[in-house]
Amino acid sequence: MKLAVSFDGQNASASRQSYERLRELVAGDLNKVNQVVVDHLQSSVTLIPQLAGHLVSSGGKRLRPILTLTTARMCGYEGGRHIDLAACVEFIHTATLLHDDVVDDSALRRGSATANAVWGNKPSVLVGDFLFSRAFQLMVADGSLEVLKILSDASAVIAEGEVDQLMISNDITTDEAAYMQVIGAKTAALFAAASEIGAVVADRDPSDQAALRTYGMSLGIAFQLVDDVLDYSAREADLGKTVGDDFRDGKITLPVVYAIARANDDERQFWKRTLEDEDVRDGDLARAMELLERHDALADTMARARDHANEAREALAGFTANPYRDALLELVDFCVDREF
Amino acid sequence: MKLAVSFDGQNASASRQSYERLRELVAGDLNKVNQVVVDHLQSSVTLIPQLAGHLVSSGGKRLRPILTLTTARMCGYEGGRHIDLAACVEFIHTATLLHDDVVDDSALRRGSATANAVWGNKPSVLVGDFLFSRAFQLMVADGSLEVLKILSDASAVIAEGEVDQLMISNDITTDEAAYMQVIGAKTAALFAAASEIGAVVADRDPSDQAALRTYGMSLGIAFQLVDDVLDYSAREADLGKTVGDDFRDGKITLPVVYAIARANDDERQFWKRTLEDEDVRDGDLARAMELLERHDALADTMARARDHANEAREALAGFTANPYRDALLELVDFCVDREF
Repeated sequence: MKLAVSFDGQNASASRQSYERLRELVAGDLNKVNQVVVDHLQSSVTLIPQLAGHLVSSGGKRLRPILTLTTARMCGYEGGRHIDLAACVEFIHTATLLHDDVVDDSALRRGSATANAVWGNKPSVLVGDFLFSRAFQLMVADGSLEVLKILSDASAVIAEGEVDQLMISNDITTDEAAYMQVIGAKTAALFAAASEIGAVVADRDPSDQAALRTYGMSLGIAFQLVDDVLDYSAREADLGKTVGDDFRDGKITLPVVYAIARANDDERQFWKRTLEDEDVRDGDLARAMELLERHDALADTMARARDHANEAREALAGFTANPYRDALLELVDFCVDREF
Repeated sequence: MKLAVSFDGQNASASRQSYERLRELVAGDLNKVNQVVVDHLQSSVTLIPQLAGHLVSSGGKRLRPILTLTTARMCGYEGGRHIDLAACVEFIHTATLLHDDVVDDSALRRGSATANAVWGNKPSVLVGDFLFSRAFQLMVADGSLEVLKILSDASAVIAEGEVDQLMISNDITTDEAAYMQVIGAKTAALFAAASEIGAVVADRDPSDQAALRTYGMSLGIAFQLVDDVLDYSAREADLGKTVGDDFRDGKITLPVVYAIARANDDERQFWKRTLEDEDVRDGDLARAMELLERHDALADTMARARDHANEAREALAGFTANPYRDALLELVDFCVDREF
């Protein structure tokens, strides 16, 4: 099937290269973060490092810790605090993934079996709690109440966003504003916090902190919108998850919000049956993708993603140009053009 | 059925009175804690206060926040920080209850339907995360890194204990030492932290902090052991949960550890079938209770509880006598003699 929004092979390849350049730029720091993560997964309860290690080592993009590392470096920070704090961010992210996979009953993440699929829901819930606690222990050891405030606020907002997402699940009357509020909380809040921390460790003034917060928030929203589009278009091997997961779960995402807003009666009945009643039959995913194309829903979602990407770029305008700033700008391109 | 360890009606009634005197003594503070809890449950996502409020208002004993309030007062503290910190302790406790009930698939707590039974597992997991985050936001607002360290350490240990408990579940080879490690972590760590915080806000020296930590730890272990005994003997209406829950869940508790250690081959087969294979048939609970009686398993567990209760009392020896110290001593009696 040809999609209205086709991912241009060249853009995607360029985007992957820009992501890899960024990873290269912070490779030394990132290796240290990985070491901190591994060290702090240790527990006398052997299932904890086993289960958490499964997810941590499954090859995530490490975008959130990379944000902390890169923003700190862009701000000229030369100490070591950003390493531990990037690990905190990764711990919080991993905890939310463990709980997400339980809540969504997911079997596959990043192309591997989820922890809940391997070990069951119970240890996934509890190991998530452990990782969350570890994040706070690391922050306490770092000793900054400002960082603790940023990340405890973000954690509360993420949980609110997750509950909110559960509320709009299967609700085909969800509008764009309600959806944007959900993803601002469940996804973008941690991008924002991760980026803001870079300015905090570098002791930058409040306006620079706010600018990096805006950068992270806008990037996070763009990232999530592209995720929503990829769920209806990605090649499974690239995304490491099954195409159509959101559809089968009755998840409301922006492409669907647009398609429903533009639906005729017959189409509305289709969305009601599939998303609201979760009565999904053979051929329904193909029809959903056809309707998304007919109503330009994926293309328009990509346009919204690009708007937020532009806001992210603009938020960096006040910072002196250096390789880290370039990398953060390229990261915006990656988030929009990525195929994984 | 008559149990080897019968709860003496007079003791139980005296114990309930001593608990009620303690609640009366800190009633003013406790009302303020309840207000802080209610205020901080607020969220634009309406399910959050609804679900969390269901549990918070279901009439728990509030033992953990009462520990913070009473230890602070015993140490002569006259400020207001102990109110917010007691609320933090209650938030962390409530978060673990929500996750526990999901992990145990419980339908009843304190005589009411559990949150997961009413709203399902998904929001229970996520609202637990929210409450946990709220606890840390409150601690950050309080501003003490020392308190943050005590409670983030406790949270990590609790999660480890919960995973550990899952590991020994259905494992009839579990010995007393392994079991004591589990309950030291999953239950007593929060009692210890809640009590220690009282000394911290009152700015007492490290030895007083350590003494209150020991008090809480010993009290928590005694409390949990009595809980284990009550599960095989309590009147349902008093405990607000079903008698025999632990048995039907294949949970290993100290009474069962003792009974298995003293079992003949035939009895061992019974424990293997019921606890390990979870093949529980009509009449099995009655037989389990009979075996616990035959081997003095409940009486010996109560003896261990009394040992720890004595340690808790001794930990208070260094503090000047005052009504709060008396109340903390009475609380030990309550925890051992309670029927609920």
